[in-house]
Amino acid sequence: MKTADKEALKRKTNAKISRPEFFNIAISVDCVIFGYAKKELQVLLIKSNRKEFSELYSLPGDLVRPDEDLDTAPYRVLKEKTGMDDVFLEQVQAFGAIDRHPSGRVITIAYYSLIDILHHKLQLSDNDLHWHSVKNINQLAFDHKLILDTCIHKLKEQIMDHPLVFNLLPEKFSLRELQDVYEAIINITLDRRNFRKMISLKKWLLDLNELEINTPRRPGKLYKLKKEYSSFNGQKKK
Amino acid sequence: MKTADKEALKRKTNAKISRPEFFNIAISVDCVIFGYAKKELQVLLIKSNRKEFSELYSLPGDLVRPDEDLDTAPYRVLKEKTGMDDVFLEQVQAFGAIDRHPSGRVITIAYYSLIDILHHKLQLSDNDLHWHSVKNINQLAFDHKLILDTCIHKLKEQIMDHPLVFNLLPEKFSLRELQDVYEAIINITLDRRNFRKMISLKKWLLDLNELEINTPRRPGKLYKLKKEYSSFNGQKKK
Repeated sequence: MKTADKEALKRKTNAKISRPEFFNIAISVDCVIFGYAKKELQVLLIKSNRKEFSELYSLPGDLVRPDEDLDTAPYRVLKEKTGMDDVFLEQVQAFGAIDRHPSGRVITIAYYSLIDILHHKLQLSDNDLHWHSVKNINQLAFDHKLILDTCIHKLKEQIMDHPLVFNLLPEKFSLRELQDVYEAIINITLDRRNFRKMISLKKWLLDLNELEINTPRRPGKLYKLKKEYSSFNGQKKK
Repeated sequence: MKTADKEALKRKTNAKISRPEFFNIAISVDCVIFGYAKKELQVLLIKSNRKEFSELYSLPGDLVRPDEDLDTAPYRVLKEKTGMDDVFLEQVQAFGAIDRHPSGRVITIAYYSLIDILHHKLQLSDNDLHWHSVKNINQLAFDHKLILDTCIHKLKEQIMDHPLVFNLLPEKFSLRELQDVYEAIINITLDRRNFRKMISLKKWLLDLNELEINTPRRPGKLYKLKKEYSSFNGQKKK
């Protein structure tokens, strides 16, 4: 070990010894993965493996390892718990009430993402990993209901100003499908003409000059998100 | 101690013993307090009292106490370090690179606020607590420059869509003063007519039918933020 490294280690040890009660916390990350199916906003949940929360679902999450950067932890967790490795995760918020975790002081950082369910197949089925419609979720393990509600609130705030919901849809979609997604998220029925006017003003969409196929209704025109917006907020599709 | 409490304590102790290497982290909070003076965006800094960072400034911050909720910690820190107790703090982001702190693994949660410097006098002068123009800051202790830059980036993103900058100004202001604040934050000179058109479209302002006094220029009309926006984002003035 180099002298400088030894010095650094000594300083760290001294600091911990002088304030040991502060170095007594664990950090976890929790992933809020939103999808869209059956005209409803969905979230990915896993059965909690803790006795205190038996029969309850939780967000996929884990403790951050001592040798792991905070922002790489949620990617490792998502890969381990769901098999997915092509999802961009955005940090949302830290949750740190004193008694939020039964194992001791654990502060968690929530990350969220919007994905197209059909293009991100779940590769693992351990621990009862499934999509759940958010409107049917009344209780979750830990404070995960609060975390989920916080992420839904953030989503509602952002979808009118930013081209976010397109991450929930296939590449090509009709305006009817787009309106369905908005309605599922904000939980309000929108006027068709006002919605189309609002979307048109955003100038986010490219008209593909194609029509829907295999629809029981009159086929609608198909659109896709303009290229310049497709990496908005770092969201990506592989 | 009640049996249920004993059981809970036992579970916690067991969990920590089974994964002790995870309960080895400290959490800190850091406060990014923005102000506006001399036509420049300012931030409140304090001299670092750590030997490793001698002569460097840092954001006001401290470790979260074992018995302290995360979201109450920054208010305690701000009160202790600056004397201010009437500032609303919004959580911005967690920073958790492995080696960001010389004392060991410390993950920090940054909070920010915009305040009117004249109405929030600094009550303490310990540790060289002062306002600094952000454009002159090249280096800070820890990763505080990264934290500051992240907050400035967030501010730039938000000020066009949300009535935020008014928290930096006195209650009454002219459009010239308002434009100066915007220009200080985004660091770009704006066209006067375009700026006034943009602000007018927002419908944020109330025309007070008063004129500036004590100005060397031709007095401008005075405005204030409409009441319905004055608590936007929870920002408050006492």
